[in-house]
Amino acid sequence: MASIQDIARIAGVSVATVSRVLNNHPYVKKEKVEAVEKAIAETGYIQNINAINLKKGKTNLVGVVLPIVDHPYFSQLIQGISQAAASHHYKLVLYQTGYHEGQEMEALEMLKLKQIDSLIICSRKVSLEIIERYRQYGMIVLFENGGTTPLSYTFVDHYTCFMNALAHLYDKGHREIGFSINRSDGTNSRYREQAYQDFLKMKGLPYHEEYMVRDCLYLEDGERILERFSQLQHRPTALLATSDQVAAGIVIASSKYGISIPEDLAIIGFDNHPIAKAMDITTIGIPLNSIGQLLFGQTLSKEMSHEEVAVRLIERRTV
Amino acid sequence: MASIQDIARIAGVSVATVSRVLNNHPYVKKEKVEAVEKAIAETGYIQNINAINLKKGKTNLVGVVLPIVDHPYFSQLIQGISQAAASHHYKLVLYQTGYHEGQEMEALEMLKLKQIDSLIICSRKVSLEIIERYRQYGMIVLFENGGTTPLSYTFVDHYTCFMNALAHLYDKGHREIGFSINRSDGTNSRYREQAYQDFLKMKGLPYHEEYMVRDCLYLEDGERILERFSQLQHRPTALLATSDQVAAGIVIASSKYGISIPEDLAIIGFDNHPIAKAMDITTIGIPLNSIGQLLFGQTLSKEMSHEEVAVRLIERRTV
Repeated sequence: MASIQDIARIAGVSVATVSRVLNNHPYVKKEKVEAVEKAIAETGYIQNINAINLKKGKTNLVGVVLPIVDHPYFSQLIQGISQAAASHHYKLVLYQTGYHEGQEMEALEMLKLKQIDSLIICSRKVSLEIIERYRQYGMIVLFENGGTTPLSYTFVDHYTCFMNALAHLYDKGHREIGFSINRSDGTNSRYREQAYQDFLKMKGLPYHEEYMVRDCLYLEDGERILERFSQLQHRPTALLATSDQVAAGIVIASSKYGISIPEDLAIIGFDNHPIAKAMDITTIGIPLNSIGQLLFGQTLSKEMSHEEVAVRLIERRTV
Repeated sequence: MASIQDIARIAGVSVATVSRVLNNHPYVKKEKVEAVEKAIAETGYIQNINAINLKKGKTNLVGVVLPIVDHPYFSQLIQGISQAAASHHYKLVLYQTGYHEGQEMEALEMLKLKQIDSLIICSRKVSLEIIERYRQYGMIVLFENGGTTPLSYTFVDHYTCFMNALAHLYDKGHREIGFSINRSDGTNSRYREQAYQDFLKMKGLPYHEEYMVRDCLYLEDGERILERFSQLQHRPTALLATSDQVAAGIVIASSKYGISIPEDLAIIGFDNHPIAKAMDITTIGIPLNSIGQLLFGQTLSKEMSHEEVAVRLIERRTV
């Protein structure tokens, strides 16, 4: 394979001139540009960006760790990260992990090996302690409340917004409030569960294990919740759902179970996906696209930063 | 920065031994492993995958060109590509183009510069003629019927499945059939529009420009279609929708417009997204996840290949 030196020799110009031609530098004499282009055509010289990256120590690639892509929560985040990245000439490398620690470790190793310049971790299984060991290799940004971790992060205060949503249901007269979460071991889920327990205590309400439904993330989980609630002697009169997908699934399946929304079951969703707007579902609006843009912005900074994103309850027809 | 040669010198071993240690080769004496690890720790040596990629001429990255991520059609495709890629130790680089030719060209240039080993083009604006010029640099795979193009592709026969869906509506007694598409200049949209025109001719039905709604892709476009149809003196009695998102948007907004589905308007969606199953929408099932896996498989082959994926009408409640 021809090298840049070969091109320079054949074209009768300096290596610096070849480099300027390759980078479309404006101040190169026309004859020299032509000579270089001729030499490139003759030798079949191919520039290799890995050589450039090696020299620059930079790839303009940002890694994104997330469990799945085909859920609006994550696809909206990606869309936001990708939009911000594009305006800085960065591309995304997806590490779709399915919450397998091995896959998450692979992303961290790729940061170490400089396949990517920085890493955004949207959701994780690997401990913060392990992740922190990799921060010497590039900026790592989390989408969660990382507390005192020496990593950058952007977060939504899941505890407070869950508290506020519960208070909203309580103010509307609900005393039997159920809730659904996805996995139990994530940072966000832990904050939500804590809020639920604290709220019940604060209001002197009893805790019913059967009002809590786990592993809920998709439309079809909405029907699973209804099926479960319909078998209970005493059903909750309201539900805080993991995601608008779950909330929409409940609204769709409700007629099948003879349950009127909100008369028999009030629902507050989460995220404000397009489906929540279309179906008039009360929800907690999380600006996922903007959050994606913020996360990318944090990867560019050399300084550690922590951003809290304000969220608000959007009152619609399901409460 | 320390080089692999420095490590070898400090550890008192050969460069080949350092390389074996870095690659976790099983047959290296314990003392040598320790000496190399000590030298790495002392010098702060960092392996750079760009050097490895340069040497191998391979990055284990596959590029994916698509206009947007936050739509189930594309996010399901990515999910499928990503799953297949993971099992071959490949990662995805996203080129989210918003149908800007410049962004698509950037992806092609990155194939040329070996940032990626191969490229999957899920939807495009740049002409096939231009794309074909890049096939010397790596495998390019399209998700469309590429006809006689010397590129690999996987496709769904949009013409035939549109014809079959129209025949299904015709058999149910519909003579005034509307349809929605997204952009007009895509290969798939052209095939669909051709099928619509041919079907009307075949059955001797008149063509109504106002029965065709363009730029439809999202939930909210469903309401736009209803708004438009409700202003017509003579409304279509059935609609072939671009996407299940559009079909679901229509079902959701139908009560607001006093339109009963399917009595006043029968609907066939497209893709079989989870929302179509949840809302019992008749649709044309496109196995997007499997298609994503197929597309990735084609990038690995050295031979050009063309795959047609069978699709089927899934009869539900909206016709």
